[in-house]
Amino acid sequence: MKRIEHIGIAVKDLKSGNDIYESLLGKAPYKVEEVTSEHVLTSFFQVGDSKIELLQATHEDSAIAKYIDKKGEGIHHIAFEVEDIYKAMEEMSAKGFKVLNEKPKKGADNKLVCFIHPKSANGVLVELCQSIK
Amino acid sequence: MKRIEHIGIAVKDLKSGNDIYESLLGKAPYKVEEVTSEHVLTSFFQVGDSKIELLQATHEDSAIAKYIDKKGEGIHHIAFEVEDIYKAMEEMSAKGFKVLNEKPKKGADNKLVCFIHPKSANGVLVELCQSIK
Repeated sequence: MKRIEHIGIAVKDLKSGNDIYESLLGKAPYKVEEVTSEHVLTSFFQVGDSKIELLQATHEDSAIAKYIDKKGEGIHHIAFEVEDIYKAMEEMSAKGFKVLNEKPKKGADNKLVCFIHPKSANGVLVELCQSIK
Repeated sequence: MKRIEHIGIAVKDLKSGNDIYESLLGKAPYKVEEVTSEHVLTSFFQVGDSKIELLQATHEDSAIAKYIDKKGEGIHHIAFEVEDIYKAMEEMSAKGFKVLNEKPKKGADNKLVCFIHPKSANGVLVELCQSIK
């Protein structure tokens, strides 16, 4: 893992979340992006070498809607940047981590992403992500 | 906020957590430290410019023990590095964030720390931390 690329935070309302995190972090989000395949509206704040991503569900079937129903708002995942996501997925599977995607999928912010089941990592939903070149 | 200093993850057993995160991150923790005042045993993994901190309770009164009882293992807090923690605490209070400490306290890894209530930040327990010079 090269670095913590971002931390994903599930929020009920992106506009209100953006106001709170703009106040907390002292800067505005550098982008707002809808990921229709995931039924989420996202925003990104740069903090040092990493980002805070806020995620609001746009559909009741969204993983974020289900997460908030079950656990309330809060930290949803940690994303680690990897050099080669295909190789990283193979390595993680070989080490016994439960990789949740057969193939990487297109995520927000120009990334290929996959997820590792929280049961594999002490309750933490881990995302691996690689920038699309 | 200068950067994400670390992400704190509550685990039931530090030894087992260390094995899992050593496998996930591809490196060993660079330190294990007990913070007796907080009743926690911690370990730190460097990832890029940030750290992953694992926290195991050493007493049933520990905030980590209570967290795991209520929510299970998982991400407990995000810590942001600040230049001057006293100034940051004043600024956060003035902005309406609920700062949980009257004064900074001594945390792990040679830091002065304070916390902001999760209700102030969309369910996220936010730590502010400043290195002790």
